[in-house]
Amino acid sequence: MILYDSPVSGNCYKVRLLAAHLGLPLERRPLDVVDRSDRRDVIGELNPALRVPTLVLEDGRPLAESDAILFYLAEGTPYLPEDRYERAQVLQWMFFEQYQHEPNIAVVRFWVGWSKDRVSEEDIEAKRQAGYVTLDAMERHLESRAFFVADRYTIADIALYGYTHVAHEGGFEMDRYAAIGAWLARVAAQPGHVTIDA
Amino acid sequence: MILYDSPVSGNCYKVRLLAAHLGLPLERRPLDVVDRSDRRDVIGELNPALRVPTLVLEDGRPLAESDAILFYLAEGTPYLPEDRYERAQVLQWMFFEQYQHEPNIAVVRFWVGWSKDRVSEEDIEAKRQAGYVTLDAMERHLESRAFFVADRYTIADIALYGYTHVAHEGGFEMDRYAAIGAWLARVAAQPGHVTIDA
Repeated sequence: MILYDSPVSGNCYKVRLLAAHLGLPLERRPLDVVDRSDRRDVIGELNPALRVPTLVLEDGRPLAESDAILFYLAEGTPYLPEDRYERAQVLQWMFFEQYQHEPNIAVVRFWVGWSKDRVSEEDIEAKRQAGYVTLDAMERHLESRAFFVADRYTIADIALYGYTHVAHEGGFEMDRYAAIGAWLARVAAQPGHVTIDA
Repeated sequence: MILYDSPVSGNCYKVRLLAAHLGLPLERRPLDVVDRSDRRDVIGELNPALRVPTLVLEDGRPLAESDAILFYLAEGTPYLPEDRYERAQVLQWMFFEQYQHEPNIAVVRFWVGWSKDRVSEEDIEAKRQAGYVTLDAMERHLESRAFFVADRYTIADIALYGYTHVAHEGGFEMDRYAAIGAWLARVAAQPGHVTIDA
């Protein structure tokens, strides 16, 4: 399989992390996340949103959106529960992640790390506050649980780990969050774990 | 089942539309989308994100995030393909919807209709431009297709219909989009269709 990839994107890292757990080889083709001028030429026919990750399956069929890719690869494996309600809970947390986690926590990290001169401190701080609301919700959920769904490590954890474990790079004070900290350590201790810069 | 609902929310409407197709009765409990001060009291134990729609199943278990609810309700019905790749494509379009459609097209509609005095014209216009990028991607996809996935009406169409069919309320010029217009008509012609104000 071919992964149109960015080494620094948490969304791409999610796919690489699950692929590592599953022992699936990926041919990585990096795209620039700042200069996006080649996107339409390279992945225009593969992903209407022109974003990475974009996966091309062995038979040539494309798949986009990081959490849809996770769901596809995890079907029939221990990383996606078979129970209908638990699968829906996994999706609930993945939609939570794409709707309210990534647009705040990942975007603040990107602004601080890659485009600080083009964004105001006020905009960064507004998104950072929204990010803290999201982290607060995760902390409350994890105070009584080892993992997000079904008491075990699933793609819901992988989806949320992607940008939570690098949130400090966006200036988030993660030592406020004891339950998230313990969960991050549990995820990193899973067999076959790889880091974002692996 | 109980649906914590808003009559004007496209996210809630998606759930009501699929429930109507499936003949599932819903007890609707409306929450205010402007004054959200009661959210923690009413749905704090049901949905960590404190948003509508929040569904409570017949056995009392809660489920949140509109597209996760659609996936749950559609399992085993014609509205969700059984093929693994087609299911992933449905999810791809639902994540596209929550990541880049709803945050632009729904938010502009909300700002214009419910909180115009609190938002600058500049902010509205920036989001409207991002919304047009999203509509352009949908138009290209629909130019050669009747529905988003698998050549038939699925929850991918329901998810995208929710806010596309009211995008004009946010000032989007929808007559630019012939393929989207034809698709909107095909969705509205499905057996069991209900309108957002039903």
